[in-house]
Amino acid sequence: MTVYNRVALIGLGLIASSIAHAMRQHGLAGEITGHDVLPETRQVALDIGLVDRVFDSAAGAVEGADLVILCAPVGAMGDIAAEIGPHLAPGATVTDVGSVKQAVIEAVGPHLPAHVHFIPGHPLAGTEHSGPRSGFATLFINRWWLLTPLDGTDPAALARLRGFLETLGANVEEMDPHRHDLVLAVVSHTPHLIAYTMVGVADHLRRVTHEEVIKYSASGFRDFTRIAASDPTMWRDVFLTNKEATLDILGRFTEELFILQRAIRMGDGDQLFDYFTRTRAIRRGIIEAGQDTAAPDFGRAVQPPEKQGKG
Amino acid sequence: MTVYNRVALIGLGLIASSIAHAMRQHGLAGEITGHDVLPETRQVALDIGLVDRVFDSAAGAVEGADLVILCAPVGAMGDIAAEIGPHLAPGATVTDVGSVKQAVIEAVGPHLPAHVHFIPGHPLAGTEHSGPRSGFATLFINRWWLLTPLDGTDPAALARLRGFLETLGANVEEMDPHRHDLVLAVVSHTPHLIAYTMVGVADHLRRVTHEEVIKYSASGFRDFTRIAASDPTMWRDVFLTNKEATLDILGRFTEELFILQRAIRMGDGDQLFDYFTRTRAIRRGIIEAGQDTAAPDFGRAVQPPEKQGKG
Ligand SMILES: NC(=O)c1ccc[n+]([C@@H]2O[C@H](COP(=O)([O-])OP(=O)(O)OC[C@H]3O[C@@H](n4cnc5c(N)ncnc54)[C@H](OP(=O)(O)O)[C@@H]3O)[C@@H](O)[C@H]2O)c1
Ligand SMILES: NC(=O)c1ccc[n+]([C@@H]2O[C@H](COP(=O)([O-])OP(=O)(O)OC[C@H]3O[C@@H](n4cnc5c(N)ncnc54)[C@H](OP(=O)(O)O)[C@@H]3O)[C@@H](O)[C@H]2O)c1
Repeated sequence: MTVYNRVALIGLGLIASSIAHAMRQHGLAGEITGHDVLPETRQVALDIGLVDRVFDSAAGAVEGADLVILCAPVGAMGDIAAEIGPHLAPGATVTDVGSVKQAVIEAVGPHLPAHVHFIPGHPLAGTEHSGPRSGFATLFINRWWLLTPLDGTDPAALARLRGFLETLGANVEEMDPHRHDLVLAVVSHTPHLIAYTMVGVADHLRRVTHEEVIKYSASGFRDFTRIAASDPTMWRDVFLTNKEATLDILGRFTEELFILQRAIRMGDGDQLFDYFTRTRAIRRGIIEAGQDTAAPDFGRAVQPPEKQGKG
Repeated sequence: MTVYNRVALIGLGLIASSIAHAMRQHGLAGEITGHDVLPETRQVALDIGLVDRVFDSAAGAVEGADLVILCAPVGAMGDIAAEIGPHLAPGATVTDVGSVKQAVIEAVGPHLPAHVHFIPGHPLAGTEHSGPRSGFATLFINRWWLLTPLDGTDPAALARLRGFLETLGANVEEMDPHRHDLVLAVVSHTPHLIAYTMVGVADHLRRVTHEEVIKYSASGFRDFTRIAASDPTMWRDVFLTNKEATLDILGRFTEELFILQRAIRMGDGDQLFDYFTRTRAIRRGIIEAGQDTAAPDFGRAVQPPEKQGKG
């Protein structure tokens, strides 16, 4: 069922391509237009049918669209908004999928004309892969899609966007942008920085060779390497734009790490045991809330080397 | 094909039960005996057929066994060795599965009589679950099983144990125990401590509620909660017994974290981008080496809440 006549996707990577596949599956858009900075990406998007038409410029892609979704890295959104502002159709809805919300609102908001509805958003869904070929229609199913609407947002425009996102499979909730950035610093941004750091440490160590790290990468480190394989541009932008909350949580993290480090040094087994017991409960909560699989080791199937790449 | 006539398992949790299932599947043991501190665990092990006979004491279980596998937490192994030492059959092989090797060698070695072969080992395989019901026969397939034999180990006893472990599906390698503890501090022990800490931080934060952390736990944090749901006793013992290497790697980790933290504070995007680009390569190496799945997000399937627990 068509919800928007023309949807423009700006930035044709993982999130945009997943939205495109899901829109096609549900017939949500009359037409899909798109733009990406890279000519190769634009060509792939056209070839695999993500979009009906691609444009060399973001301005061209948004012309006549009643929904515009900004799917570029957070740091690029201000410039994109400045470019498309004058070309947006009256009554159009503009949303984004950026992982940070306050910085996007500050960067994008001032460039948009009064006659469009700007409703910032963030799907809590993704993988470590990126680019136009990495998307899939089921990415958003049963995942949260947080909207951080500004004061005075038109209820009809909001309801229409909500309905659209729910048809993609998402559970939509509204949230204050400041709170969004703090919660995400805890559940996503700081864990990513920590994973990147640990993988970096392993990479730099001279006494343990690169081969050993790869060969014996056990549970724990393997999981970190998946997280630390995420798109560098996206994550650079996240940390630069959610600086305050990330530094705040990092400070807390270092404080607690020093406490555990001291317990190890002092041989205080009781303190370690108590700490490790309390963290178990959170995992149970997440599984009960349907936010992760209860299967051991995520149910992952590791293939012997000779079978990799063939499946 | 029977490799040992009687195999005794001491400590009947995840690793022991996985060994038992795999031994049964391949007919590797004439008879399996077992002991665990908890009477309930002993009963379960008997009921579900992990062992043919259980004993109230470790000493009873090892009587007449030609292979003894210590599968208890690392911190318990010294006492177990002291108890079983006088009861071991001449020519028996004693091995262990502890995640730390130097401390186990120091704690166990002195208690074993000269007429047994002590060959310390460590399977790089596990899940976040524990207990006698959590094991499965395929746990060791295509995973490393590191042996850290002492000087003067009998080649025939070593070859026999190797063949046994290979039939369980493992890739067996020999390693120096000191090096083992350092490599594992990098690829497993320190990542676990970090994951525990991050989950602990989320748990303690007053400004972000418990409900929010669970509800919005995105990729990154979710992965950490799985790691931080591992057995507290096992991990307490790992940190207490691999203290030196863990503290060493933790020091490196904090150093690098401070550098990235400073880059965030200073807004140095290039430094962040370069760091995040280099860590990607390690992930590729791990997947090519067949040590993890290339499927996005580990290929995990998250079930909607209403389906959880039914499958
Ligand atoms: N991946 C996740 O887990 C996830 C989850 C939720 C939200 N998000 C957010 O979704 C957005 C996109 O992430 P993604 O994972 O889809 O990344 P992605 O696969 O790398 O896609 C981003 C695309 O935007 C393009 N781009 C960069 N600058 C642009 C510009 N000025 N104009 C037009 N296109 C531009 C990129 O081109 P190049 O390849 O040339 O850079 C790339 O094709 C980000 O804001 C991110 O914070 C990501
Ligand atoms: N899990 C992994 O990922 C993994 C991987 C490789 C190696 N390991 C190593 O394997 C060993 C066992 O780990 P696991 O994962 O199998 O843990 P587990 O599922 O908790 O099993 C350990 C069992 O040993 C019992 N136990 C404790 N003290 C004992 C004693 N003095 N005598 C006899 N039994 C005793 C425990 O009883 P209670 O329940 O009463 O404590 C429990 O049933 C540890 O040394 C660990 O370092 C674990």
